[in-house]
Amino acid sequence: MMEIGFNALFVFLATMLVFFMQAGFALLEAGNVRMKNAGHVAGKTMLTLGVAILSWWALGFGFAFGDGNSFLGATGFLFGGEGDIGSFSVLADIGVPLNLMFLFQMAFAAVSLAIACGGMAERAKLSVYIVFGAIFTVIIYPIVTHWVWGGGWLGSLGMQDYAGSTVVHLTGATAALAATILLKPRLRKYDKDGKPNSIPGHNQVITVLGVIILWIGWFGFNPGSALTPLNDGFFGYVLLTTNLAAAAGGIAALLVSWMVRGKSDIPSMLNGILGALVAITGACAFVDTWASILIGAVAGITTFFTGRWIERAGIDDPIAAASVHGIAGVWGAISTGLFATPKLVEITGVGQAGLFYGGGLGQLGVQILGVVGTFAFVFTLSFSILWGMKKLMGLRVSKEEEVMGLDLSEHGTYGYPEHMKWRMKTASSSSMKVKGNDKHEGHDLLVTRSPAVE
Amino acid sequence: MMEIGFNALFVFLATMLVFFMQAGFALLEAGNVRMKNAGHVAGKTMLTLGVAILSWWALGFGFAFGDGNSFLGATGFLFGGEGDIGSFSVLADIGVPLNLMFLFQMAFAAVSLAIACGGMAERAKLSVYIVFGAIFTVIIYPIVTHWVWGGGWLGSLGMQDYAGSTVVHLTGATAALAATILLKPRLRKYDKDGKPNSIPGHNQVITVLGVIILWIGWFGFNPGSALTPLNDGFFGYVLLTTNLAAAAGGIAALLVSWMVRGKSDIPSMLNGILGALVAITGACAFVDTWASILIGAVAGITTFFTGRWIERAGIDDPIAAASVHGIAGVWGAISTGLFATPKLVEITGVGQAGLFYGGGLGQLGVQILGVVGTFAFVFTLSFSILWGMKKLMGLRVSKEEEVMGLDLSEHGTYGYPEHMKWRMKTASSSSMKVKGNDKHEGHDLLVTRSPAVE
Amino acid sequence: MMEIGFNALFVFLATMLVFFMQAGFALLEAGNVRMKNAGHVAGKTMLTLGVAILSWWALGFGFAFGDGNSFLGATGFLFGGEGDIGSFSVLADIGVPLNLMFLFQMAFAAVSLAIACGGMAERAKLSVYIVFGAIFTVIIYPIVTHWVWGGGWLGSLGMQDYAGSTVVHLTGATAALAATILLKPRLRKYDKDGKPNSIPGHNQVITVLGVIILWIGWFGFNPGSALTPLNDGFFGYVLLTTNLAAAAGGIAALLVSWMVRGKSDIPSMLNGILGALVAITGACAFVDTWASILIGAVAGITTFFTGRWIERAGIDDPIAAASVHGIAGVWGAISTGLFATPKLVEITGVGQAGLFYGGGLGQLGVQILGVVGTFAFVFTLSFSILWGMKKLMGLRVSKEEEVMGLDLSEHGTYGYPEHMKWRMKTASSSSMKVKGNDKHEGHDLLVTRSPAVE
Repeated sequence: MMEIGFNALFVFLATMLVFFMQAGFALLEAGNVRMKNAGHVAGKTMLTLGVAILSWWALGFGFAFGDGNSFLGATGFLFGGEGDIGSFSVLADIGVPLNLMFLFQMAFAAVSLAIACGGMAERAKLSVYIVFGAIFTVIIYPIVTHWVWGGGWLGSLGMQDYAGSTVVHLTGATAALAATILLKPRLRKYDKDGKPNSIPGHNQVITVLGVIILWIGWFGFNPGSALTPLNDGFFGYVLLTTNLAAAAGGIAALLVSWMVRGKSDIPSMLNGILGALVAITGACAFVDTWASILIGAVAGITTFFTGRWIERAGIDDPIAAASVHGIAGVWGAISTGLFATPKLVEITGVGQAGLFYGGGLGQLGVQILGVVGTFAFVFTLSFSILWGMKKLMGLRVSKEEEVMGLDLSEHGTYGYPEHMKWRMKTASSSSMKVKGNDKHEGHDLLVTRSPAVE
Repeated sequence: MMEIGFNALFVFLATMLVFFMQAGFALLEAGNVRMKNAGHVAGKTMLTLGVAILSWWALGFGFAFGDGNSFLGATGFLFGGEGDIGSFSVLADIGVPLNLMFLFQMAFAAVSLAIACGGMAERAKLSVYIVFGAIFTVIIYPIVTHWVWGGGWLGSLGMQDYAGSTVVHLTGATAALAATILLKPRLRKYDKDGKPNSIPGHNQVITVLGVIILWIGWFGFNPGSALTPLNDGFFGYVLLTTNLAAAAGGIAALLVSWMVRGKSDIPSMLNGILGALVAITGACAFVDTWASILIGAVAGITTFFTGRWIERAGIDDPIAAASVHGIAGVWGAISTGLFATPKLVEITGVGQAGLFYGGGLGQLGVQILGVVGTFAFVFTLSFSILWGMKKLMGLRVSKEEEVMGLDLSEHGTYGYPEHMKWRMKTASSSSMKVKGNDKHEGHDLLVTRSPAVE
Repeated sequence: MMEIGFNALFVFLATMLVFFMQAGFALLEAGNVRMKNAGHVAGKTMLTLGVAILSWWALGFGFAFGDGNSFLGATGFLFGGEGDIGSFSVLADIGVPLNLMFLFQMAFAAVSLAIACGGMAERAKLSVYIVFGAIFTVIIYPIVTHWVWGGGWLGSLGMQDYAGSTVVHLTGATAALAATILLKPRLRKYDKDGKPNSIPGHNQVITVLGVIILWIGWFGFNPGSALTPLNDGFFGYVLLTTNLAAAAGGIAALLVSWMVRGKSDIPSMLNGILGALVAITGACAFVDTWASILIGAVAGITTFFTGRWIERAGIDDPIAAASVHGIAGVWGAISTGLFATPKLVEITGVGQAGLFYGGGLGQLGVQILGVVGTFAFVFTLSFSILWGMKKLMGLRVSKEEEVMGLDLSEHGTYGYPEHMKWRMKTASSSSMKVKGNDKHEGHDLLVTRSPAVE
């Protein structure tokens, strides 16, 4: 009896931390976009959070964890909070109250959706977030979750994904990639010859705050996946590897940016931290401390270079979801297949040792299969759905709306009304050449409506 | 023995979360006011937090939870932390160390005070926050708390208010309403014909952050009120209904704003989330999941419309305390009287089933009595005290000070000194018509003193 | 068995809270500097966090808590997470898994480093943070920690420092002082006659948020140092004194600033809160509630006056580390020697009662010895190391770089690119006299490179 309450408390704390990551995403994204879109971007994170919660309650949880076949679950819809845990065979002997498992997994689903939406920033219509957010949380994310954690085929094969490098991050990033491709780049992101222009975010301080909050959120994400604080506090080891990887990833990315660009770059360091956290998410319970540092450092460096390649390839991914959550998510799955130690595999009871620990190619093969299967499934489904939405309702705001900013176009008011007012004055009085869009913004400001009265 | 430590840990976590809500209020309020008042508004939240802590320690806790009569308590003043828990009959058999009960309840008191102070924004003198803050935490809030949770008459009648829709939120909002009426509207809030002007907040991003932090704080507010993680993790169910309501409230308010105004409105969505959280605060442990969604959605919609009506009625409530915490608080109490299920009433052991569950009008009547009694008591007392303060010391800064902003008038320095300096330059150099108050602010900036040296 | 998991959960929660203080420092410092340095300041907090984690893992933890002599430890390097807790004699019977002790103490080390780096703000090169950060976390901080908590000579003498007024705060502040002296004041901080000019921070709202986060972090810092929630929830008493002190410190500092300067000053109040928290860090488990209020109030007042004296003495300490963490840290150690009660000394099992409780001068003497020893050791070592670094690699950016801001000089891009662009326009079009550095900044902005592409 006391053990159940004990696990409940642990999972509650972890749920709170993963839920708090929504603040991290809101700030990371808002800081990484321009001022004219910042209110919209922060606000839509709250909106997609609400959509994720209701969708998960109505259908998502049932598809993910309900009893069903190896492809998807089919019980537990419209979750009443009183479901007999025994009816969820995969959850039955965990010793955590069903309500808390529901909420913990709901927080994961909301993280995956936040990643998916990151790729849409600064040009997608608000309605797209609502419609695609519901579909993603009802169908796309739950199916992958079912495959690995809900009694599905990848779990049966012994795929090692402790807290979701693949399930949560790669899934979200793959959907973001599909959206990014269909949405096309932001205006003026690329010159006529295809050379990318920088569109720096407007506020590095809140971006830094967002990253620290996400890091703190990972205290729940990875150790929380132990689902119990008993077992001699094994979750503490998971937290140890998580932090070592994050530190290594940030420093490695900063140093690489310094070498390549001649200046140390803070956004690169921040993406390095996040990439390392994504990679270690799958590996955290399976690898030695030194390996976690190596995995983190490689993730930081990889995130830096792949982010540049993706940008140069013509894919405009404003918050670098494809590299930070996608490529690093893949690396997390593969690195587990390389570095999983026999001792830790025994403790976690999942899969086999990795290639470098005498496990041969078996586990590595399962990991690669999991990554390829997840990517293929999520990309195909997301791309198809978004393609259909593009035909039916359109994905992108008009050119004029994009220039004026989504705060105005989608919500009728700026997120920073005083700043934008001064900007307009500056633009109109400046002796310097004023760009067309500044004037435009000034003009639109005059017709903006108030947030509280008509 | 271990159970006591266990409950202590649970209540500690909940206390930390509720305490963190002060960050939420500081950001919500600062983001919702103008730049010239933002440092003041954020700073005064820290000040009222300090006032609340010392007032609660000296007297408030004793009036609320000390042994006394059905109106107020009278032991436990100047709390030494070593008080015999047995002397607090209402707390004696809870199984939570007294220090942690003291702190948990202190965090609640500070939340109620933060709500009360929200209505004063952008025009009350700093000294008002100190004096009224002390009185509120010593007398007003503790008496209501005693009535419902401290062994008083409403508790004896079986009023259902799990975590304080009435005790915390309605009490705070009622005091805010009294202050708002006595302070009168901000300058230029209303035209000569009484039509309200919008005074948009300066930073939606930090407002969003504030709302997420408040939401996270509610993880402690509602589930924490279970006071134990044992009982098969029942607190997890409370968290489930809380999150479902919040999601429904935000989405409902956004959609309503979209329909009514033609544009989806982010501040309306944020207020919808908060209103839903306020409403479910009382009902969270008593209602089914589907009912929590309904309660949240109705709260979101109600908050939207009542906010507009209150504004049009000439009451200038800068952070919408009256609708978000007041009306939604009332709805929370009433909805419990409608939707409380027999099963959950049995688990919580408070009151009876609601009207729609065969409980008749009994419980609904108690809920209405509680709401009316609380409102009448708090409004009368708060209005009288503030009226006296208005006569004795004045509540409001001068017209000139309000124009220059409370950062300067109350503290002698801007919260955003560099922004305001550019603004001054912009104003003086702009070819556009410059409003008088901009010039005024520029002038005052020149005489501002530094924050650290004379 | 369950007890170990129980303590693990408690220390995990405390670790998370102390770790979250990095967000507090990032915001506190970023808000307290000018806009042109804000991205750099926030970002370097993430960098030093990474440096602290890897340094602590490689060597610091072993020097601090490994088995060794009374001066330093010498086992546990390159921590593998599987170390036999028995090999750490000082940790062996605590009943907390070694991984969590490692992480909890790592978070403390990172806090001390953040304090040390605070004094360097707005003029030190990024490379200085990396090199000195590693040395500080490998050698300086671990040695002091070993002395008091790791089995060293101060612990043997019975020094009372519950959560590190001396170990964490005084150590960090002393290193900051050495750095501040060697770096010399920021440009234009002092007039030719030595009179200090105010250089106000650019954003009080995020400074307030930083302080609330730090306060929340102290929920882990002080109560967490109990290392267990058992013992009848004694950690709740520690939290009680902590909060009372913080409230008293903030209010006292605000009132003093009001009396001295004629206006209540928010940054002074915030520093008063932090100074009180620093002081009560050492005393929290040893003193009565009324004494905690007194200790906090004295800390708040002392922080106010010493901050002014230090500034007037020509030491430019941008975030007031010397007064807030140094002087208040000393006061925390001394006040414990004055107010420690026999009853609480018995519960904690450390040292003897204080001077005012019949303990004579014995404990006070030990406290003073601890403070003097720590200051002398840390100052000598830090000053020597930084002096050597100054000769070898230089500590400070060039005059030109300081004027343009460290965002540009160290990272090649502004943290607030849009704000700075408008500022440039304002400067070039303003009819007011434009200072040279504004023009300069404008110029440099044009050559800045993007954060994500070359």
